Amino acid sequence: MSDVYEPTERTTVKRLPARGSYDRKVVHQILDEGLICHLGFVVDGQPFVIPTIYVRVGETLYVHGSPASRMLRTLEQGVPACATVTHVDGLVLARSAFHHSMNYRSVVVLGTATVVSEPDKKNEILHALTDHLIRGRWEEIRHPSPDELRRTLVLALPIEEASAKIRTGPPLDDEEDYALRVWAGVLPLKITASDPIADSRLAPESAIPPYAAGYDGPNSA
Amino acid sequence: MSDVYEPTERTTVKRLPARGSYDRKVVHQILDEGLICHLGFVVDGQPFVIPTIYVRVGETLYVHGSPASRMLRTLEQGVPACATVTHVDGLVLARSAFHHSMNYRSVVVLGTATVVSEPDKKNEILHALTDHLIRGRWEEIRHPSPDELRRTLVLALPIEEASAKIRTGPPLDDEEDYALRVWAGVLPLKITASDPIADSRLAPESAIPPYAAGYDGPNSA
Repeated sequence: MSDVYEPTERTTVKRLPARGSYDRKVVHQILDEGLICHLGFVVDGQPFVIPTIYVRVGETLYVHGSPASRMLRTLEQGVPACATVTHVDGLVLARSAFHHSMNYRSVVVLGTATVVSEPDKKNEILHALTDHLIRGRWEEIRHPSPDELRRTLVLALPIEEASAKIRTGPPLDDEEDYALRVWAGVLPLKITASDPIADSRLAPESAIPPYAAGYDGPNSA
Repeated sequence: MSDVYEPTERTTVKRLPARGSYDRKVVHQILDEGLICHLGFVVDGQPFVIPTIYVRVGETLYVHGSPASRMLRTLEQGVPACATVTHVDGLVLARSAFHHSMNYRSVVVLGTATVVSEPDKKNEILHALTDHLIRGRWEEIRHPSPDELRRTLVLALPIEEASAKIRTGPPLDDEEDYALRVWAGVLPLKITASDPIADSRLAPESAIPPYAAGYDGPNSA
């Protein structure tokens, strides 16, 4: 397998091409650090963009939800879809308004989804999904019953047509603006967890697990 | 003006309708707390979802960028668009895999964009955009030159067809699962800033401004 996704007309980063990447590892890493993607699909010519949890396993993105979800019912018909994952890494504060920017990493995946119907495979994906969000959780919780698996629609979106776009580093000002006495730099941003809030109906001796008390974001599957 | 957005067939929250809201204040507040939206548009039947900075002013969302941007060049033609803003507020850790969820607040805005071409109006929107991202910044920085304004495309998306979807609170488990000795609760998540990183070419006496050192997220315009 090639180290890169073959850029297509649709995934080629045209605006600021130096920010584009088609490297498989780069794309995977960005995907693996995300909690939600924004899924795009079209109904009667109108695009809809809906946030949803996902996990990457190998070269596939999986999403899941209720069989009653309009998003999933639309996507399972094999219509064109777009899944986008974005990390906002910082505000880029330049000396001029024009050069203000954002440090970010994003991935766009284009394709069509297929339904995962085999119960064992669905269970395996829900396992990967849960451990992607919070590693260690799956082995402690009650696993899906056959009926719950039936009530869960799982869709697979192959990662074949994909690209990443990344901005890092300091502001890039016009040369004459560097003389201005304006503070400039980057304000780093990150998603952080605060103390877990225990459910009011905990059974006795249900201690906060270390993976929740020391949560450090999602994991690769 | 009504306190609510009239729900349409396209914005009615059908799946878990109790999570839906059409309240103007609720929609505005969610929009005002966001740094980026995910903008959806369609090219040759293929949906694209692209992250971009935005600001709400009154009943309009504004986005901006280079006139070379495919996204903006597509949207300025007045094609159907969807702007979605999502805040991930926490992981909801239930006793069963099936009832795991996420606390979140999201807004979906459907509509078509128009170009803002008047230079003073564009400047005003860039002012609002900058102060939305980081209040206090605009008055310190060099403002856009006429040429920079020409090189900035500003689009307006009216907030007319919009809805919010919100989940809050603890996990909701099946009654028999409450007896399980599994820790359950919510892991709150939030975007936080760490120490600003000064640009290596700061002019002398360029102190870190208080709005950057004590950054607490975006503001309403």
